Amino acid sequence: MITLAMGNGGVENRDLIEKVIFRHLGNDLLAQAEDGTAIGSLPKAIFTTDSFTISPLFFPGGDIGKLAVAGACNDLAMMGARPKFLSCSFIIEEGFSLRDFQRILRSMAKELSLNQAQIVTGDTKVVPKGSCDGLYINISAIGEQVADVSQGYLKPGLAILISGSVAKHGAAIFAAREGIELQSDLMSDCKSLWPVVEELLSVEGIKAMRDATRGGVAAVLNEWARAAGVGIEIDEGAVPVTEEVRGICEMLGFEPLVLANEGTFVVAVEPESAPAALEVLRRYDPDASLIGRVQEEYAGRVVLRSQWGTRRFLDMPSGEILPRIC
Amino acid sequence: MITLAMGNGGVENRDLIEKVIFRHLGNDLLAQAEDGTAIGSLPKAIFTTDSFTISPLFFPGGDIGKLAVAGACNDLAMMGARPKFLSCSFIIEEGFSLRDFQRILRSMAKELSLNQAQIVTGDTKVVPKGSCDGLYINISAIGEQVADVSQGYLKPGLAILISGSVAKHGAAIFAAREGIELQSDLMSDCKSLWPVVEELLSVEGIKAMRDATRGGVAAVLNEWARAAGVGIEIDEGAVPVTEEVRGICEMLGFEPLVLANEGTFVVAVEPESAPAALEVLRRYDPDASLIGRVQEEYAGRVVLRSQWGTRRFLDMPSGEILPRIC
Repeated sequence: MITLAMGNGGVENRDLIEKVIFRHLGNDLLAQAEDGTAIGSLPKAIFTTDSFTISPLFFPGGDIGKLAVAGACNDLAMMGARPKFLSCSFIIEEGFSLRDFQRILRSMAKELSLNQAQIVTGDTKVVPKGSCDGLYINISAIGEQVADVSQGYLKPGLAILISGSVAKHGAAIFAAREGIELQSDLMSDCKSLWPVVEELLSVEGIKAMRDATRGGVAAVLNEWARAAGVGIEIDEGAVPVTEEVRGICEMLGFEPLVLANEGTFVVAVEPESAPAALEVLRRYDPDASLIGRVQEEYAGRVVLRSQWGTRRFLDMPSGEILPRIC
Repeated sequence: MITLAMGNGGVENRDLIEKVIFRHLGNDLLAQAEDGTAIGSLPKAIFTTDSFTISPLFFPGGDIGKLAVAGACNDLAMMGARPKFLSCSFIIEEGFSLRDFQRILRSMAKELSLNQAQIVTGDTKVVPKGSCDGLYINISAIGEQVADVSQGYLKPGLAILISGSVAKHGAAIFAAREGIELQSDLMSDCKSLWPVVEELLSVEGIKAMRDATRGGVAAVLNEWARAAGVGIEIDEGAVPVTEEVRGICEMLGFEPLVLANEGTFVVAVEPESAPAALEVLRRYDPDASLIGRVQEEYAGRVVLRSQWGTRRFLDMPSGEILPRIC
């Protein structure tokens, strides 16, 4: 069990770090950390941060540890950057199970190895019972940019791809929270994207990528349209959604396009390269699809074209959409 | 008031970030952030992270915002690194006062400017009432190392200095929590150390620095002794402690050497440079003092020599020492 003393800056704190955390996350750089860690010279660095407060901590398809490492590394991958150096900060509630903590550390170690990234500096706080809900993790991450991708490169004519079926994370967390038992294997899409992204970047003409986390695909497309001053048209029928996810969305009263994903991303690519890009994406997920295109019309807005040919705006999501989803 | 919708990844989230947070912390790099921020080329980078869960959020001498920026930048300063790029991640409890949040943002902006550092990437989560206590902040920070200092350079003969009187932060937080009204101005020592450190580094022979946060001076010295395999002897009577702090320590039953500081640091320096180093330190705080020396005897241990000539070990602190002190 985690005790308050384990956050005291003294003996118990040191033991938690050296005997528990280092056992799973240890490496030469972390062992040399003092108040910070020397990580040498970085040529084209990308820096990102994310705090994870998900509930429940363990869910079908992952846990907060996998989610935290994958989520932070995915932010780097979306910037065309190879994940390298991570910081890790735990806020742990007094009384938290040491066994669960170790299970989470193991997930983190596995995900780090998939990204070939290291945790090089860390922090551990323990707060009294009731001051947080179990465990929160912050990961900040530094990567090395290997491809020049940005929402700034969006322009009319680009094809919009999605790397897999949408809303699985949001739907799985909702089902887990509500204790909904489905006769199916509804699972979060939580996964590390650097492996597929690294391969995808060998295709010419990749202009921008974004993982569709909080706010879902709707948030990504609206941010893109607004930031680049372009319109984006999506063919609603082309967006892959599984039957189970559609069922959950109907219960929730949310569109699949606003629910969170944790391993599914949107790609903007030159139209002539779309087939090659899709081929790479489908090697990792057969549901990857071409779902729309960037256009001049309706600059700043996202237009959804239904299967019956009607059009409506897909707005930036608003309101309370599943708090503590990540 | 902060609402759950402000953490949704949608409209309200964007408004909180762009209309509130950017107003205080905005800069060109932050404005360009996508999933991460390009920070260019870093020659000798130091990376550090710290989460802040202090209670109360406002205390005599500072608040969680000042503490967070100063604390993270101080970790870089202690590594001989100039603070440069910071990430900032907020976990905010639903219902938190927007006015208090803005007051905290203003403190952060002020402290950033003292360090000439920028927040270049961020994250904002809102959790339901009861899932955290008000506000937690993580700051991860990247600095550029300008001096080669490390606990690895500790060796017998070095002088040990302290930059000011000890335990003010721990004592002030305890007094604030317990509602102890003192006829004095007991205040936290919370402050940014880069200005004094930058000047101090112009003195030859500075070997190691460490700010004495959680676990206090006792934790720093014990970590140093253990890591470098040296002994450290401290002259108890030479350690500056104010009368008010001593009074609080007696109430608490703790030694001033185990209580937290947030702007006071220990320096190991070649003995012939100690006077010059002290002169710099005293320009910032007249209480700066020479308090001991590194020795061969009792390797791995810290020895406290009392005013009556007796000696005892000063151990690594243990047990519950004021949780949520930082």
